[in-house]
Amino acid sequence: MEKITSRDNARIKYACKLAASGAFRRSEGRFFAEGRKLCPELARAAQLETLFLTAAAAEKCPRLAALPGEHFLVEDHVAAKLAGVPAPQGVFGVFRTPAHTLEEVRPGGRYLALEGVQDPGNVGTLLRSAAAFGFDGVILSEGCAAPYAPKTLRASMGAAVQLPVIEAGAMPPVIGELRRKGIECLAAALYRSQPLGDAKAGPGGVCVVIGSEGQGLTEATIAACDRTVRIPMTDRVESLNAGIAGSILLWHFRGAGL
Amino acid sequence: MEKITSRDNARIKYACKLAASGAFRRSEGRFFAEGRKLCPELARAAQLETLFLTAAAAEKCPRLAALPGEHFLVEDHVAAKLAGVPAPQGVFGVFRTPAHTLEEVRPGGRYLALEGVQDPGNVGTLLRSAAAFGFDGVILSEGCAAPYAPKTLRASMGAAVQLPVIEAGAMPPVIGELRRKGIECLAAALYRSQPLGDAKAGPGGVCVVIGSEGQGLTEATIAACDRTVRIPMTDRVESLNAGIAGSILLWHFRGAGL
Repeated sequence: MEKITSRDNARIKYACKLAASGAFRRSEGRFFAEGRKLCPELARAAQLETLFLTAAAAEKCPRLAALPGEHFLVEDHVAAKLAGVPAPQGVFGVFRTPAHTLEEVRPGGRYLALEGVQDPGNVGTLLRSAAAFGFDGVILSEGCAAPYAPKTLRASMGAAVQLPVIEAGAMPPVIGELRRKGIECLAAALYRSQPLGDAKAGPGGVCVVIGSEGQGLTEATIAACDRTVRIPMTDRVESLNAGIAGSILLWHFRGAGL
Repeated sequence: MEKITSRDNARIKYACKLAASGAFRRSEGRFFAEGRKLCPELARAAQLETLFLTAAAAEKCPRLAALPGEHFLVEDHVAAKLAGVPAPQGVFGVFRTPAHTLEEVRPGGRYLALEGVQDPGNVGTLLRSAAAFGFDGVILSEGCAAPYAPKTLRASMGAAVQLPVIEAGAMPPVIGELRRKGIECLAAALYRSQPLGDAKAGPGGVCVVIGSEGQGLTEATIAACDRTVRIPMTDRVESLNAGIAGSILLWHFRGAGL
């Protein structure tokens, strides 16, 4: 295995730029991830191009050698440059970003749409719950945390590549497109809404639409949806965390057989 | 309002000790919290004894003056000693800890029991979900994150005082006591378990029992319960976050009328 001894190595600089910049990830069609469990998990569904390993990680996890792509041994000070967490595990990968578009959305499917959900932890958690509960894809509006940013990847634990993730622009026209395909779009909102326990998905498919942590959905997006649902709560709490509330909605509309 | 100018003031040292030590919180029957929203929220249901405010906070939130207890103005360098977060809001309180025991557990009620859930964020999240979904109390085994520790309070957003929280020792005898009251105890476990969608709570009350993030419930606790339930998932993810999984269980067994 070739060894990288310099922090200025071009491959290292490229990987760091992927980690730091969403625009660079988009223009290159690649993303960067770190983690002894996360990298193999991502490699199950996304093309691993480059794997960087410390000697300690290679010794501890001999099975990493079976992963595809070009492998490089990196010295600890080089790994420290790649690492974005306090206790790095010495395993880093550059992957091809799976490309998905709204055209793949199919009638009868189950979708999650997020509008302006800014926290990478919440976006990652919701990707993980959507994959767990048999959803067919996730649509992110502009203003959402980037699905392939390192923090989001950690929170999703690799789920981002386990189902199609579609990065779209503004949400209302997306809702219009889904409804034209016969998919019922349900806005999560507190007011003038149906309690979740009574809400049923129609046979044409369903899209659960969730807004930002602070403001919720925009009026335009709520107006574009078929109807609104809410999670009924006692008055002992003001709100639920966005990842929790969204996961409960996803569980309610889970795939057949779950 | 009396002003505290020294970091060595006895009241400040007392508050810091409450923030840092679970044993001290227990022996004093008091806890410490910080936050412009959290302190008034906690004061709705727990007795606020002492409120510390910076001049900036007092000016920004004049309504804090209406809170009960003794109020003290603290200089910024004193507030910095009290603060446990990067961007402190200059509002801190010492509260009486509500005291609850297993004797309060009543037949027909809805309870959450946590065994060895160590992450304060998960314990706080589950307290918040339990309050939201009409539960009558939460029982914590030894080894759980402390419910009145600053991090747990932040994650629960004050829910810790909105429903009885009972700190117990080992879980299996607690389960025995609940079952003697006719409460059905459901262990969350992956194996030999019923899918959640099919699980119904009996009329005698229900207790949802959730284990630690890594290991789940102990064998002894699973054996002590009436039966086990699981959240069915696709094979695209390995697991759900403990706060998410627990909140979905709580939603499923939510109070009547929600």
